[in-house]
Amino acid sequence: MSVRTLVSDEEASAEVRAVFDDIRETRGSDFINNFWRALAHDPLQLNKVWEELKEIMGPGTIDPVTKEMIYIAVSTANGCEYCIHSHTAAAKAKGMSEAQHSELISIIGMAGKTNHLVTALQVPVDDVFKAE
Amino acid sequence: MSVRTLVSDEEASAEVRAVFDDIRETRGSDFINNFWRALAHDPLQLNKVWEELKEIMGPGTIDPVTKEMIYIAVSTANGCEYCIHSHTAAAKAKGMSEAQHSELISIIGMAGKTNHLVTALQVPVDDVFKAE
Amino acid sequence: MSVRTLVSDEEASAEVRAVFDDIRETRGSDFINNFWRALAHDPLQLNKVWEELKEIMGPGTIDPVTKEMIYIAVSTANGCEYCIHSHTAAAKAKGMSEAQHSELISIIGMAGKTNHLVTALQVPVDDVFKAE
Amino acid sequence: MSVRTLVSDEEASAEVRAVFDDIRETRGSDFINNFWRALAHDPLQLNKVWEELKEIMGPGTIDPVTKEMIYIAVSTANGCEYCIHSHTAAAKAKGMSEAQHSELISIIGMAGKTNHLVTALQVPVDDVFKAE
Amino acid sequence: MSVRTLVSDEEASAEVRAVFDDIRETRGSDFINNFWRALAHDPLQLNKVWEELKEIMGPGTIDPVTKEMIYIAVSTANGCEYCIHSHTAAAKAKGMSEAQHSELISIIGMAGKTNHLVTALQVPVDDVFKAE
Amino acid sequence: MSVRTLVSDEEASAEVRAVFDDIRETRGSDFINNFWRALAHDPLQLNKVWEELKEIMGPGTIDPVTKEMIYIAVSTANGCEYCIHSHTAAAKAKGMSEAQHSELISIIGMAGKTNHLVTALQVPVDDVFKAE
Repeated sequence: MSVRTLVSDEEASAEVRAVFDDIRETRGSDFINNFWRALAHDPLQLNKVWEELKEIMGPGTIDPVTKEMIYIAVSTANGCEYCIHSHTAAAKAKGMSEAQHSELISIIGMAGKTNHLVTALQVPVDDVFKAE
Repeated sequence: MSVRTLVSDEEASAEVRAVFDDIRETRGSDFINNFWRALAHDPLQLNKVWEELKEIMGPGTIDPVTKEMIYIAVSTANGCEYCIHSHTAAAKAKGMSEAQHSELISIIGMAGKTNHLVTALQVPVDDVFKAE
Repeated sequence: MSVRTLVSDEEASAEVRAVFDDIRETRGSDFINNFWRALAHDPLQLNKVWEELKEIMGPGTIDPVTKEMIYIAVSTANGCEYCIHSHTAAAKAKGMSEAQHSELISIIGMAGKTNHLVTALQVPVDDVFKAE
Repeated sequence: MSVRTLVSDEEASAEVRAVFDDIRETRGSDFINNFWRALAHDPLQLNKVWEELKEIMGPGTIDPVTKEMIYIAVSTANGCEYCIHSHTAAAKAKGMSEAQHSELISIIGMAGKTNHLVTALQVPVDDVFKAE
Repeated sequence: MSVRTLVSDEEASAEVRAVFDDIRETRGSDFINNFWRALAHDPLQLNKVWEELKEIMGPGTIDPVTKEMIYIAVSTANGCEYCIHSHTAAAKAKGMSEAQHSELISIIGMAGKTNHLVTALQVPVDDVFKAE
Repeated sequence: MSVRTLVSDEEASAEVRAVFDDIRETRGSDFINNFWRALAHDPLQLNKVWEELKEIMGPGTIDPVTKEMIYIAVSTANGCEYCIHSHTAAAKAKGMSEAQHSELISIIGMAGKTNHLVTALQVPVDDVFKAE
């Protein structure tokens, strides 16, 4: 149902193939998911988005499972079906337990609720919360 | 700027006062933020929201700082100004470092970007991501 | 904080003045709120939006208070601060009680929660819900 | 397409079965929709969400059809496909007429439009709309 | 999967048929897309939405391809799958090149990212940006 | 009201100063808006976001004013107050006329309306719109 066809390995240019190779090596898996195949019509954009994702989701001060849970949280609030599926799969692959998944969903649901309550009431920000 | 006035300690009914007392005791602080004062016009709702939040944000399989970061992620995607302020303050109080805050913001920004890319392209969900 | 100045009665062209007059007469009040003053830079658009609003929010099969509550519900989910304020004021002016306001907010909060739960879980639509 | 399997009656634990029984009795129907089957992996959450929904959507100062229409309004603005389907079905079952459905959709569309106009113009909130 | 059936040419009333005829003539094509067939249950609304769309998307100070790109941008941020598909098809039919489509998607992704960064940081609006 | 202080020229590190200098030179203006001052707590992120924005908003197949209008469209649907203000100012500085601004707002409003109508009705995507 994409608005663009998905680029297969056979159709991939040398530039696209290089990114696909790096995705495969970085992830230790032969699988290239549809997101990259849809982006591949624009090799430069494919390369930039992959480099950015690799860096931001790579080692840092937040652990890999937490990073995926944050990604699921944003994607849920934005209603991005594909992103919820792909990052839930990634979170599980990186060690998110069933109990953590349930707890994550509870927090997302609670945040969705209080976001709506606060907005409907237009609660003013407390002075102590402001940086300046 | 609220669509409702904020209930002060003096105006609080016994029912509201009981919730305010529990908030103060649970948090070990005398401060009651505006969200609770706006909800207090409906004591039953105030009580239920507080009990739900206390339970979901309490001890579990996800650590307290991560819970607050997930809350910030949802609140940002939903554009809830108040919630971003209050949960950023809570995350810092519970130990989120400046480096973690920057990294959290990078992930939220990256997710915002790929959510929009995926949606604009209407990328179909890979079969391997589906539960059934 | 508008990106445009607000058109005062003195600055209003004859075309704008005619719409302002109709708003005043329809509402039985001399007050013209800022939304119309911001739209007034484009008299044709001002006229069309006002005619559309007057018709849709006028008599029909849904009562006036319910119409305003539906408007508040959409505006909250869309995070439109101005719209929440103006339609909450309108709902109260048309008879929404404090108890109904609290109940409305509870429903909006509950919907916000289950919307997030359903989306995070990507629950498939039951066949019986589909029209075809 | 769920990120979780749906819990069938056969797979349901005693705790889940008790909630399913209450849903069936409350609604006077044997049908359990997918939302509850997806939540059932976490029996505690299933129970809490059901109790909250039963209370909020139960008797109050807002009539049952209006409650469902408010739910449809929020779910539409949040883009929750499942929720729009399930609550439109519920609204019809509770008596929403075709004419009311059309009128509801007109109001939601109008609100979507003015929400965007107001936001694009960043119209400042009139002082008379503020509670304090 | 609509919550309503789609009105076929055979089922169309005279009023609906008149709108369908005008859509066909205006577009120089026999094809009527599903949006209009879903709206056709309410002939008055069908007529009004079509007239509004025809006028706003018709000749003006912004060229037709740009108008469609703006429509895609809004529809992406709102997560409207149908609208993204239909307006991407329209933009291509009106001359949007593959390179422009890629560039459009890059801008939408970038805006999605900075919207999230700005919101997470709650950056205050610079005084010079305000109209008054 | 930021959740972070804004970095002044005096507080800027050499790394931050280099980005500020490039912003000034690229724009031919001494003014650094708050977005960059808020990002400056994380010099690496500041640099990356600026480089990405400079490239995407620079010369390409879509003209500069159209790029800003697309940015305004996304920012409006996402409810990003700051971004609407800053990109409306940028669009005007690059030549967007008052008439184009009004037309842009009409299109955004129309898209907001039809996005909501389509979503409320859950209109199925026509087969001819799909890429595969």
